[in-house]
Amino acid sequence: MRAGRPRDEGVRRAILVAAQELVLERGYAAVTMGDVAKRAGAGKQTLYRWWPGKGALVLDAFSEWVSQAPRLRGPRRPSLSSTLVELCRGASEAAPVLRALMAEAQFDEDLHRRLLAQLVRPRGDELRACLVDRRPADRELVVNVLSGLVWQRLMLNEPLDARFVRFALRVVERI
Amino acid sequence: MRAGRPRDEGVRRAILVAAQELVLERGYAAVTMGDVAKRAGAGKQTLYRWWPGKGALVLDAFSEWVSQAPRLRGPRRPSLSSTLVELCRGASEAAPVLRALMAEAQFDEDLHRRLLAQLVRPRGDELRACLVDRRPADRELVVNVLSGLVWQRLMLNEPLDARFVRFALRVVERI
Repeated sequence: MRAGRPRDEGVRRAILVAAQELVLERGYAAVTMGDVAKRAGAGKQTLYRWWPGKGALVLDAFSEWVSQAPRLRGPRRPSLSSTLVELCRGASEAAPVLRALMAEAQFDEDLHRRLLAQLVRPRGDELRACLVDRRPADRELVVNVLSGLVWQRLMLNEPLDARFVRFALRVVERI
Repeated sequence: MRAGRPRDEGVRRAILVAAQELVLERGYAAVTMGDVAKRAGAGKQTLYRWWPGKGALVLDAFSEWVSQAPRLRGPRRPSLSSTLVELCRGASEAAPVLRALMAEAQFDEDLHRRLLAQLVRPRGDELRACLVDRRPADRELVVNVLSGLVWQRLMLNEPLDARFVRFALRVVERI
């Protein structure tokens, strides 16, 4: 939910920044809504007005992290490989948070829906946008395969490094 | 850890059966080590002698669930499609447990290692055994892709049904 008034928007930004800082400093599991409220100089009830719980708040704080796709840098359509490199870089940096959120989502349906809407689908759309030359059926197939490989690596705590990107692109070439 | 003496083996089986029953009845999150001990007629300390916690115990109770590969049914080497059908059937039935274990493993390194050794790798080996006609590099690629697709479906709570199997086989054909 977006806050409308400028003052609200300022408080909201402060809360998101505090959540991001604290999770990076202490790890997802060690941070509470109270910690975030204190760091942001906001009331705990303000946090609960905008977010149902820690999962949804941390998801908002990090969902932009993995979406710095290279399309933002220029007018040309980005290549699949540069998009995948950026996606893996972002996912690598935020890996502990992403793993924690996906884990918590297994027990929390609302967070599961948010994770799909804010992270899984938008990243799929970024990949899909690089595949306009492919037949629509193939496009879905490639997006599914890449998304599966990335999430599997994350959950198995294996690196999303340059070697992985080469491997994933080799898979895509064959499809 | 396996119990050596026959009596121990009987107790161990009773505990595994109790864990399986309780998790199917109440769901992973609602079951405690104490519940399992009570149902099995064993002492809680006996459970902790063999398993460090609920995750490891439930993993032992369910790791055979998803390994009823068709090779057990006859001397012929099973096809990739029949193996994948059986794997998806088992994973579907145990889906809530598998999702809970993978989630908990994100916060528990010992459980993470056990999950890899008892579930992820053995299932990969079953798939690999159906791919002996492929070049070794392609074999690893196919196993990774299939494993990624299955785990992604599980974690996103999407069905591992006949339609998924057709989709996955179509991907493999292209590789």
